[in-house]
Amino acid sequence: MKKIAVFTSGGDSPGMNACVRAVVRTAIYKGLEVYGIYRGYEGMIEGDIKRMYSHSVSNIVQRGGTILKSARSEEFRTKEGRQKAYEKLQKHGIEGLVAIGGDGTFTGAKLFFEEYGIPTVGCPGTIDNDIYGTDYTIGFDTAVNTALEAIDKIRDTAAAHDRIFFIEVMGRDAGFIAVESGIGGGAEFVMVPETKTDLDSVVNALKNLRKTKTSSVIVVAEGDDEGSAETIMTKIKEKIADSSKEFKVTTLGHIQRGGSPTARDRVLASRCGMAAVEGLIAGEQNCMAGVTNQEVVFTPFGDCIGREKPIVRDHLRLIDILSI
Amino acid sequence: MKKIAVFTSGGDSPGMNACVRAVVRTAIYKGLEVYGIYRGYEGMIEGDIKRMYSHSVSNIVQRGGTILKSARSEEFRTKEGRQKAYEKLQKHGIEGLVAIGGDGTFTGAKLFFEEYGIPTVGCPGTIDNDIYGTDYTIGFDTAVNTALEAIDKIRDTAAAHDRIFFIEVMGRDAGFIAVESGIGGGAEFVMVPETKTDLDSVVNALKNLRKTKTSSVIVVAEGDDEGSAETIMTKIKEKIADSSKEFKVTTLGHIQRGGSPTARDRVLASRCGMAAVEGLIAGEQNCMAGVTNQEVVFTPFGDCIGREKPIVRDHLRLIDILSI
Amino acid sequence: MKKIAVFTSGGDSPGMNACVRAVVRTAIYKGLEVYGIYRGYEGMIEGDIKRMYSHSVSNIVQRGGTILKSARSEEFRTKEGRQKAYEKLQKHGIEGLVAIGGDGTFTGAKLFFEEYGIPTVGCPGTIDNDIYGTDYTIGFDTAVNTALEAIDKIRDTAAAHDRIFFIEVMGRDAGFIAVESGIGGGAEFVMVPETKTDLDSVVNALKNLRKTKTSSVIVVAEGDDEGSAETIMTKIKEKIADSSKEFKVTTLGHIQRGGSPTARDRVLASRCGMAAVEGLIAGEQNCMAGVTNQEVVFTPFGDCIGREKPIVRDHLRLIDILSI
Amino acid sequence: MKKIAVFTSGGDSPGMNACVRAVVRTAIYKGLEVYGIYRGYEGMIEGDIKRMYSHSVSNIVQRGGTILKSARSEEFRTKEGRQKAYEKLQKHGIEGLVAIGGDGTFTGAKLFFEEYGIPTVGCPGTIDNDIYGTDYTIGFDTAVNTALEAIDKIRDTAAAHDRIFFIEVMGRDAGFIAVESGIGGGAEFVMVPETKTDLDSVVNALKNLRKTKTSSVIVVAEGDDEGSAETIMTKIKEKIADSSKEFKVTTLGHIQRGGSPTARDRVLASRCGMAAVEGLIAGEQNCMAGVTNQEVVFTPFGDCIGREKPIVRDHLRLIDILSI
Repeated sequence: MKKIAVFTSGGDSPGMNACVRAVVRTAIYKGLEVYGIYRGYEGMIEGDIKRMYSHSVSNIVQRGGTILKSARSEEFRTKEGRQKAYEKLQKHGIEGLVAIGGDGTFTGAKLFFEEYGIPTVGCPGTIDNDIYGTDYTIGFDTAVNTALEAIDKIRDTAAAHDRIFFIEVMGRDAGFIAVESGIGGGAEFVMVPETKTDLDSVVNALKNLRKTKTSSVIVVAEGDDEGSAETIMTKIKEKIADSSKEFKVTTLGHIQRGGSPTARDRVLASRCGMAAVEGLIAGEQNCMAGVTNQEVVFTPFGDCIGREKPIVRDHLRLIDILSI
Repeated sequence: MKKIAVFTSGGDSPGMNACVRAVVRTAIYKGLEVYGIYRGYEGMIEGDIKRMYSHSVSNIVQRGGTILKSARSEEFRTKEGRQKAYEKLQKHGIEGLVAIGGDGTFTGAKLFFEEYGIPTVGCPGTIDNDIYGTDYTIGFDTAVNTALEAIDKIRDTAAAHDRIFFIEVMGRDAGFIAVESGIGGGAEFVMVPETKTDLDSVVNALKNLRKTKTSSVIVVAEGDDEGSAETIMTKIKEKIADSSKEFKVTTLGHIQRGGSPTARDRVLASRCGMAAVEGLIAGEQNCMAGVTNQEVVFTPFGDCIGREKPIVRDHLRLIDILSI
Repeated sequence: MKKIAVFTSGGDSPGMNACVRAVVRTAIYKGLEVYGIYRGYEGMIEGDIKRMYSHSVSNIVQRGGTILKSARSEEFRTKEGRQKAYEKLQKHGIEGLVAIGGDGTFTGAKLFFEEYGIPTVGCPGTIDNDIYGTDYTIGFDTAVNTALEAIDKIRDTAAAHDRIFFIEVMGRDAGFIAVESGIGGGAEFVMVPETKTDLDSVVNALKNLRKTKTSSVIVVAEGDDEGSAETIMTKIKEKIADSSKEFKVTTLGHIQRGGSPTARDRVLASRCGMAAVEGLIAGEQNCMAGVTNQEVVFTPFGDCIGREKPIVRDHLRLIDILSI
Repeated sequence: MKKIAVFTSGGDSPGMNACVRAVVRTAIYKGLEVYGIYRGYEGMIEGDIKRMYSHSVSNIVQRGGTILKSARSEEFRTKEGRQKAYEKLQKHGIEGLVAIGGDGTFTGAKLFFEEYGIPTVGCPGTIDNDIYGTDYTIGFDTAVNTALEAIDKIRDTAAAHDRIFFIEVMGRDAGFIAVESGIGGGAEFVMVPETKTDLDSVVNALKNLRKTKTSSVIVVAEGDDEGSAETIMTKIKEKIADSSKEFKVTTLGHIQRGGSPTARDRVLASRCGMAAVEGLIAGEQNCMAGVTNQEVVFTPFGDCIGREKPIVRDHLRLIDILSI
């Protein structure tokens, strides 16, 4: 293997740049030529591919977003699109790929590998942490801390006004951000897609809590089965006859995707990037480089996207116990 | 004057605690007894009043929210409510008041003073900066920096995806937060209540900008004449035929009220708190202690709430010039 | 078991409060009475012990330091001291202990248990991460992020002036903070106690790096075998004949111990605290509750303090590869 | 005037990039060609001068340091050095200069203007705030907040261990950083070059404070007349016979120069940069563009460097009163 390329795809996440930097520098260190593909699969189809050097990735380890940009590509879902992409890679002599992204990225990479056989190793770049095969995904720790800082701020104002705040965090299919920011932020309740949300029991518990607490924070993952934070607040407000408290909603939104990555995300991103390149050289393909139990592990793309990653059970218990 | 009381009222703002601390310690330093009234006018009516000591305000200078809590009081708007409040103050022998809050707080304080004559000095505690008689209000600097950090984060993801982001910041009647966070965040446009928003010219400018820039950030004060960020985005999306970019909205919401105050807010809060007590002792009443041109100034409540505070004209020009 | 007590001891670390909160609330949740011992073993000897309630630990999950205070106790090293401590615990009817701290804390706890048999479970509270039996210690993640933010800031000024900066981080016996903040901060070199530092090879590498880089950051753990950052800088300055660059030293010092804990530290602290209480109830004693491979694990105190915890080998390789 | 150049010189400060951006974009907006001179006067002598465009300053408003780099130049102090610099500017047809820096920068600019007559306007870029003619300098607000965050963190650990901490902040000739971070951080004492430090009275006050407080924070400006924080701690430790408390020193050092600028610094930097260019066009020369009482003011270089800027007297009183 002499030439490899790296790209970022899907929603951006903090640490993607640290990962790109690790891929580029490890490749150069190992004597490979390395290219950057811009705007994910879209840029692959269009041939938006540039040679990268050590200095191309200087001073990016601390930056959010991705210097390679990201995009969603409809065309790559078509056979014709992938054919074009393959031709562009051939033209540049690319023999291996590092794909940084989440579910959708790996689904595309798997299909592309099966059709054209270019060895591909993925790195788990998504804030949602919903990828099997790695304890944490790149960007998750930063997103949790961003959510947590917001919760800390809102708690100030909740306490000052004796309010009940519903805070919606990201997580369409997974409650990891909600659970960890909820434990960290001392939330009274956390509602996640993985478990059935029982609003009646929340209402009862809220009534009980009020005897000792004058304000409460409820963290809601955007994909909760009872709906958005706004919807849930409205339902609870109706159920709870007492109107003496003010109910408020805040939806954190896109601030959770940005920001300078935390140490944990930079280290994880660097390690996955290095492992992906070393994996490619060692013959790995159609799999993702993750870190489990402090060790690098390569997991087939099929498992990464097909197997469920459960929330740590202790974490759900923690919220119950600590909110008393 | 031997006994004074301090309270916080209206929306909380970062720095209120630093101000309470300054009031309490200056009072003690000057040999006065000092009391805290909880939950603003509501607590005044209910007699929720406690003696405060130097240690009562230890370790709060850095905390958001307000240890005295805040509330809006319907009852204080009635003659009966104010009568009750007066009686409670009489009962405790309170001879002077320090009122920390904004517009509504000072309106109430003015009326109460005119009716009962208890000397009252205000401190400008509101994130909106819309109080005449002080260059800045307590909490404004923190709110701007919170908004700015959010804009910095969103810019990461906007740039990664070539998106146009509409970010709504607080400011129902005033665009100060929008303007300063917009300049600081390098926003392409800022929309504020103080000036007529011309969406057609924004659309034209956006089309021009796109020739050189692939992403843009537009900061919208919640009180803009064209509506909320959501509304404005929808209007612009319709006007701009081109659908090649993704338009996104983020509403920052209540995170702007919380958080540990910045140095500027802590210093301003401390200074206003000290000045309010020294002012009361020196005979000031029915006025607010603010800082203008680096000097403490006492401004009659009537002016604080009645006179308009204009946005610095240079600031509006800066956005036009710097977004090219 | 009906009554337990919790204390913090040794150097404070961010997350200790979150851990105290978890201990107190889990105990109450499980129907136990819970007491706080102030100033570690010193307060145990003096009987500085108070009943704690759910509200005693409200609003502390986000605070650095420790509300129970910490101290080093010479007297507890004596048989008489420990006898007094035992008597004080007896007087309060304490049947179990949760000891939050590091090496020294557990050494004391082990000895005390062996002498008096009061069941004790530890929680790993130290920024250094040098405790066997847990992947991370409480406070480590926050300390690394604090060091990292400082490195990010210093890189700005290093780059502006083409300087070589030596940054000393905490770690008398362990290089964990240095390694993770060094990888995260894109340091050119990291010097740690665990490996022999070869200054000649650093000098050669620096000379090479200069051909492409104009500034460098070198992270030094305070316990490096070649001495402090100041000493190392002086040695390197002498070896490197070229005086065209400015060499600077910054010692981060105590800022690394403080600050609001990160999400990771709050979650870890909460989990260890809950596990310690549940462990005591289930009959665990003379051991520490840590988290390894995402699971709670109880490790005998003897192993925690007696066995070495190695740095992840990949981490040392990362620095070599990524600094090219 | 058709062509101007901008440079940064002396110690770097957060906001310099925002200022460079404002200079470049305002110049382009006004139809001028604009050049960047790298490494201050050193680069001017060497002719390290490059054309700048609007995109040259994209995405830098939030970054610390200076993309134009900075340096101290011995050669510019000689007549020959300045002659060379003039020739390089002539070669590029530069007709006006914007000099971003502090004392030393303006001293050089004044001399250079007097010798060669190239119109020059300065912008106050220094963290020390010791420039007459502007309420605040660019970078000061960020430096104060960085110092304040450090003080907040150290207070956590000071309180946990009942310690007395001496924290040294930057300020060789001026105590502005010490005073504002000291007020904001709730310091018990602040020692600055502008006032005589009386250690005996500090010792007495400390003894008094101990009756109610168990920990204290003392902020020392590096240029205090009694010496460094280390020296002062040693002196006080000797004077205070009581050894029951732990005395600790932390020197914040270079972290105060870096970091993403605060909103206040970005707005000030943007405004000064715009004003400098508009000033040059309007015929200003040999002066600095600052902001006083919210208005842009041009002050002759001679005054900026020759006149003393006093600390706000209220600020010194605040510390006395609020530390009780």
